[in-house]
Amino acid sequence: MTNQFPIPVIVNGAGGKMGREVVKAVATASDLTLMGAIDRNPQTLNQDAGSLAGIEPLEIPITNDREATLVMAAQEKQPGVMVDFTHPDFVYDNVRAAIAYGIRPVVGTTGLSPEQIQDLAEFADKASIGCLIIPNFCIGMVLLQQAAVTASQYFDHVEIIELHHNQKADAPSGTAIHTAQMLGELGKAYNPPSVEESEKLTGARGATAAENIRIHSIRLPGLIAHQEVIFGSSGEIYTLRHDTTDRACYMPGVKLAIRKVLELKTLVYGLEKIL
Amino acid sequence: MTNQFPIPVIVNGAGGKMGREVVKAVATASDLTLMGAIDRNPQTLNQDAGSLAGIEPLEIPITNDREATLVMAAQEKQPGVMVDFTHPDFVYDNVRAAIAYGIRPVVGTTGLSPEQIQDLAEFADKASIGCLIIPNFCIGMVLLQQAAVTASQYFDHVEIIELHHNQKADAPSGTAIHTAQMLGELGKAYNPPSVEESEKLTGARGATAAENIRIHSIRLPGLIAHQEVIFGSSGEIYTLRHDTTDRACYMPGVKLAIRKVLELKTLVYGLEKIL
Amino acid sequence: MTNQFPIPVIVNGAGGKMGREVVKAVATASDLTLMGAIDRNPQTLNQDAGSLAGIEPLEIPITNDREATLVMAAQEKQPGVMVDFTHPDFVYDNVRAAIAYGIRPVVGTTGLSPEQIQDLAEFADKASIGCLIIPNFCIGMVLLQQAAVTASQYFDHVEIIELHHNQKADAPSGTAIHTAQMLGELGKAYNPPSVEESEKLTGARGATAAENIRIHSIRLPGLIAHQEVIFGSSGEIYTLRHDTTDRACYMPGVKLAIRKVLELKTLVYGLEKIL
Amino acid sequence: MTNQFPIPVIVNGAGGKMGREVVKAVATASDLTLMGAIDRNPQTLNQDAGSLAGIEPLEIPITNDREATLVMAAQEKQPGVMVDFTHPDFVYDNVRAAIAYGIRPVVGTTGLSPEQIQDLAEFADKASIGCLIIPNFCIGMVLLQQAAVTASQYFDHVEIIELHHNQKADAPSGTAIHTAQMLGELGKAYNPPSVEESEKLTGARGATAAENIRIHSIRLPGLIAHQEVIFGSSGEIYTLRHDTTDRACYMPGVKLAIRKVLELKTLVYGLEKIL
Repeated sequence: MTNQFPIPVIVNGAGGKMGREVVKAVATASDLTLMGAIDRNPQTLNQDAGSLAGIEPLEIPITNDREATLVMAAQEKQPGVMVDFTHPDFVYDNVRAAIAYGIRPVVGTTGLSPEQIQDLAEFADKASIGCLIIPNFCIGMVLLQQAAVTASQYFDHVEIIELHHNQKADAPSGTAIHTAQMLGELGKAYNPPSVEESEKLTGARGATAAENIRIHSIRLPGLIAHQEVIFGSSGEIYTLRHDTTDRACYMPGVKLAIRKVLELKTLVYGLEKIL
Repeated sequence: MTNQFPIPVIVNGAGGKMGREVVKAVATASDLTLMGAIDRNPQTLNQDAGSLAGIEPLEIPITNDREATLVMAAQEKQPGVMVDFTHPDFVYDNVRAAIAYGIRPVVGTTGLSPEQIQDLAEFADKASIGCLIIPNFCIGMVLLQQAAVTASQYFDHVEIIELHHNQKADAPSGTAIHTAQMLGELGKAYNPPSVEESEKLTGARGATAAENIRIHSIRLPGLIAHQEVIFGSSGEIYTLRHDTTDRACYMPGVKLAIRKVLELKTLVYGLEKIL
Repeated sequence: MTNQFPIPVIVNGAGGKMGREVVKAVATASDLTLMGAIDRNPQTLNQDAGSLAGIEPLEIPITNDREATLVMAAQEKQPGVMVDFTHPDFVYDNVRAAIAYGIRPVVGTTGLSPEQIQDLAEFADKASIGCLIIPNFCIGMVLLQQAAVTASQYFDHVEIIELHHNQKADAPSGTAIHTAQMLGELGKAYNPPSVEESEKLTGARGATAAENIRIHSIRLPGLIAHQEVIFGSSGEIYTLRHDTTDRACYMPGVKLAIRKVLELKTLVYGLEKIL
Repeated sequence: MTNQFPIPVIVNGAGGKMGREVVKAVATASDLTLMGAIDRNPQTLNQDAGSLAGIEPLEIPITNDREATLVMAAQEKQPGVMVDFTHPDFVYDNVRAAIAYGIRPVVGTTGLSPEQIQDLAEFADKASIGCLIIPNFCIGMVLLQQAAVTASQYFDHVEIIELHHNQKADAPSGTAIHTAQMLGELGKAYNPPSVEESEKLTGARGATAAENIRIHSIRLPGLIAHQEVIFGSSGEIYTLRHDTTDRACYMPGVKLAIRKVLELKTLVYGLEKIL
């Protein structure tokens, strides 16, 4: 963070919703500088990346030429970073290409298979190039999950409520399932029953995820993205809640990842590893 | 409430948890006076109703002689009230007997069948004697339900979360189901879907009660009794929440019912009718 | 709502944040039709009102000619409505002009003085023209305030928490003060103390608004606009909460006002009057 | 926790509210055994400690003879523990006496001065005897405070709301002030303003505690003891909340302290040190 020169950053998927947010975040961070903006969508071709992101023009036109952009970045004195918010079909190739040119990938695109990740890990390892794959850039959510893991050492009873807008088709949310898995990995059986429960209406007690942890999914217009982990014990309740109200919340995590990936020499998975 | 003399009150079930609370409430209300305390539990026989309730002695011993107590109350100049927190098996007889003696019943005991209620209504009607059957004496909860009914005229989307201690065996809670029914009676189809939903884990989206209203039941030690009705609409959420932390919360409703039953000449069901 | 023809609507301030939202709402409501779009901002002149609002072009260019727009609307067979989200300095003139042309004003602009409102009321009265002045178009918030007024008949203790983003300079919010005033008007002294309170740190117990009601103002980035009214009584808590997450939440109230103003023949103040 | 024999425990202040709760907790823990029960209140003298605590008789009468009880415990093969919930005037002497007899003190009594604590620390050190002074035995609250400290490394904006029954005279609560102090000790200036704030009603923005952290205190009947720490950042809110609903919540912390004090050879202050 005390680099003499700003870190050169390429945004791949610069015309998408997250990509534009990243362009804005990079352009306004004094230790980062936007080096290139890639997007496959023909509608965004040659548009100024800054204007497209809703800020002042940055004189960086959107290109669809990944190779040229990586070559250009590779010629910088400072090692560069490529932030990737593209598509499951292209992300693997993007990451391989970046590593091949010595550019460190920070990947927010979901959909890489375990085999692909293993493959990329080996490739990064051989090249001694850091690579970060981050399914959730939201620092607050990772803090919640870590605090929940700590609390689960002292509480035997826990349930999860997640609340999202009613455009979300699947339930429970991936993040809520992930929270339950993190708690489940502690090798503990949660929520030992104190009475024999019965559901008068099926589904009332929610879904059962890892290790007997219940998840309840609320879907309403007006909601955005919210998660509550509720621990209970005789005479007390301890609640961790996270509310996402704007995509901007992911940017501190993206910027942290850009700075940290330069210190790495291998592939690392998950924001929690660099907090 | 400006009666010259205090209202004579008999508590039937005076040795039970709710009964003792009622004894306390009656003893400390200046416009009410405890006239008699009935209980079938031999362990409480002849104990002082006040001492048993944890307050100073009231010189009213617990009796199991319902008839004698009703006769005594019937001789008062003021019309009397019998509060009944007993047992599904005995409440019907208790109420008939009270009406026969001109004593107004205020019934908190659950378990009367629709036929029994119909029967008692006719009996009260003939005698021109008020009778109140109140499944939930909690004024705050009734206010929540009424506010929810009002809101449902303007909101199309609503879900219910109810949270209770993990000693509660059944789910959803009767009160949550009742809230859903009250909303359902408006003849409106709630929660029109905006996407095709899918449950990755069965039960995540809760139970479906009246008119497509979802109910989610949380059970944890440390919780007491809580209900949340959440309305959503584009750009806004309106939440009504009620928390019960002590049985004392039912006493304002019990006292209100005692005062109101004297003004009635028929059987009335539900606290909402007298608010 | 069963008019044969859609209601013609003029949006005054069509280039502002709220105005653009209104343009969108009118354009997508089948019983409303956008008739004209006025704005004094030279930058928006002649732009298409639809495009500016982020929807498809509506072939209605923004004009700064209020008179011509009102004249045109006055020639419609259907009585028209002017929605005004402009500026405290211009709103009074806008409303007078609209009434003069027989166009019904729906006013969201704040800053009218009591004298100005009185004046406009007389003017509308003489013309037998409906006029609505609505300081808060959010139906959910009005429902909350009405439910709070009802609850205050049964609860003696209440406090208000309002939470807003940290760009909001003043505290408490106008809406929270208004809620306290509505409760205060019932002529009741709230929150009789049960102990002598002392603040170890000044301000801990919040601001004292009408009739001893405390208001607490939270300011944090990530918050949007939220209000909580908390009633307490022995053994129970009853909470009403409203969360605004997007300006879209005002549109159901705006559309309701447009439809209702046509039924009125006088000036009416406040959304609660037409719910 | 795998001791062959249960740990002998003396409860000092066994007739008080917390003392009786401790008696109950010790009697029902298989690895602990109640050895003695001391109380200075003449009304409790010679009563059975178990009966007084509302459980079955334990055949341990309450005594006021501290010395004799300590002597008896000192003769056990297992090292003993004295839990002290007494009075600020007596706790110092109690702790010195216990250490002198080789009995490990677990102190919940508040009111020891810094000098007294320093003194006891030296005394425990010389004797190589563990001693725990725990101002708050609630594990959930300590977890909340630790999670808040962690979060404050990533969030610059935070406010605290604490809610208590209206019998509580002082505001803010000591625990909320302590939370603010823990955050303040990180040497960070919180809540840099983004606008110039103004209070239209004095006190609206709460009390300012350590390092510009605001605390808001709500007091209502029906509340018990609750604390919320709210972190905000662009587009997200992270909330930690703790609710105390019964004194039972302190017992896991008391039992943990009893087990841990045996492993110590010095005085340790605060539950967080042994989690």
